[in-house]
Amino acid sequence: MSPLTPQDSDFESRIRQSFSRQGAMTTLGAELTDVKPGRVVIELRHHEALTQHHGYLHAGMLTTIVDNACGYAASSLMAADSEVVTVEFKVNFIAPAKAPRYRAVGSIVRAGRTLTVCSGEVLALTAEGEQPVATMLATMMAVSP
Amino acid sequence: MSPLTPQDSDFESRIRQSFSRQGAMTTLGAELTDVKPGRVVIELRHHEALTQHHGYLHAGMLTTIVDNACGYAASSLMAADSEVVTVEFKVNFIAPAKAPRYRAVGSIVRAGRTLTVCSGEVLALTAEGEQPVATMLATMMAVSP
Amino acid sequence: MSPLTPQDSDFESRIRQSFSRQGAMTTLGAELTDVKPGRVVIELRHHEALTQHHGYLHAGMLTTIVDNACGYAASSLMAADSEVVTVEFKVNFIAPAKAPRYRAVGSIVRAGRTLTVCSGEVLALTAEGEQPVATMLATMMAVSP
Amino acid sequence: MSPLTPQDSDFESRIRQSFSRQGAMTTLGAELTDVKPGRVVIELRHHEALTQHHGYLHAGMLTTIVDNACGYAASSLMAADSEVVTVEFKVNFIAPAKAPRYRAVGSIVRAGRTLTVCSGEVLALTAEGEQPVATMLATMMAVSP
Repeated sequence: MSPLTPQDSDFESRIRQSFSRQGAMTTLGAELTDVKPGRVVIELRHHEALTQHHGYLHAGMLTTIVDNACGYAASSLMAADSEVVTVEFKVNFIAPAKAPRYRAVGSIVRAGRTLTVCSGEVLALTAEGEQPVATMLATMMAVSP
Repeated sequence: MSPLTPQDSDFESRIRQSFSRQGAMTTLGAELTDVKPGRVVIELRHHEALTQHHGYLHAGMLTTIVDNACGYAASSLMAADSEVVTVEFKVNFIAPAKAPRYRAVGSIVRAGRTLTVCSGEVLALTAEGEQPVATMLATMMAVSP
Repeated sequence: MSPLTPQDSDFESRIRQSFSRQGAMTTLGAELTDVKPGRVVIELRHHEALTQHHGYLHAGMLTTIVDNACGYAASSLMAADSEVVTVEFKVNFIAPAKAPRYRAVGSIVRAGRTLTVCSGEVLALTAEGEQPVATMLATMMAVSP
Repeated sequence: MSPLTPQDSDFESRIRQSFSRQGAMTTLGAELTDVKPGRVVIELRHHEALTQHHGYLHAGMLTTIVDNACGYAASSLMAADSEVVTVEFKVNFIAPAKAPRYRAVGSIVRAGRTLTVCSGEVLALTAEGEQPVATMLATMMAVSP
């Protein structure tokens, strides 16, 4: 068995339903573009309503989408009836975020029974290519209902 | 001279103007309630548009306001013509966030010439009192224009 | 019941025995100077054998003692038969460490059933007083045997 | 010019000399096994003198070698007369460390003029292969003398 084998065959629709219930994702206009075992991608268009005082995307908005990407990456391998909560994360902001679109990728570093460690990256997507703007290291927890 | 003496007498209006230019703060409905040298407070009302899938305030939204509180706390002691940018932060989420209102407090741990280390806290404000829901340790940087 | 009430009356001797079994603490010459519910203090004398290339105490040595202070602070409130393990920590180094002696203080921010969040501080102790040199935010976990 | 081009041809000997002046590295018995532009490897043999109370390598010792690997990775691209200091790091401990030998690898995520972001990993080396035991995300700073 691969270390990235989900416990339920329905993990993608489970995650897509959860995403659609997040008021914050609707407010940001974020899209859940890819859901694989242990790896989830969320994209976001740049919008003035999400900026800091110089017109860059706010660090908190970058954090919001990559936190979700990491959380759902962890969730993809958890039991269908458990919930994922963010224990903590650390984010480094490595370049100003001013691009038409952003892609947050969350990946599992190590999945444990209770805790899952994830790494995340946010890329700025421009006509010239992609550039990393933020990198995350996060701890997610499975909580039984 | 106190270690918390601003370099400009006008630091509060400088910070309030910067805050008012942040599209993200308008979108969230956040308020800059207190600006002191080395300590800044931002408050936010709970709103469904800012929640995750269980109706709690999204971790990214908590992070957004406490990042700003820490950034402006650092900025309060910086030269008026420099800009503050978030180098990195780490946040622990210590209780579910479901309260009518939240208060983010950012404080300086150590102000350096280039880098300032800040600690932040988000409190849930209820009729029964306040409860910490998140704690941040952040590194801010002064950038010359 | 206070939130800082240990589950066993014998927590101090339990922690002191654990400390004495740590080869690393003997190698560093660290001393467990104070054990209170939710707050533990470890001290260390400066020694050339623990320095980086400029004669400052190595960041890893500061981290080692404050990780232990935080871990034992968490352990003080855990069940006597559980083990504490460090899930993760973040440390900011805020001043060069060159003093005759250092004091690491670990304190509980929030004690949970499985996870405990701690904050730690390392102070440089000199004839003139104490100065913070490092600050930690850590997540500790109780593991059943 | 590659983004990983050192500013001085002599970066390896400069780093090796710095490493040899670290009292802490001698005490731990750590070896600087590989120095490439933007990537540095340090190895350490398991020893009882470096353990916590269950005989695992102490989290602080893992941190010490991976902090150095990251710091020297950053230093490899810095000006020969500048010094590298650790601003902060975060480490997740993802498996117990009980192996004959450990390898810490530090790599540059993004090199800036003042700040360099690095990622680090510690692997446990056994007869069966390598297993990650810790992962670091760190911020390093170039300081002019």
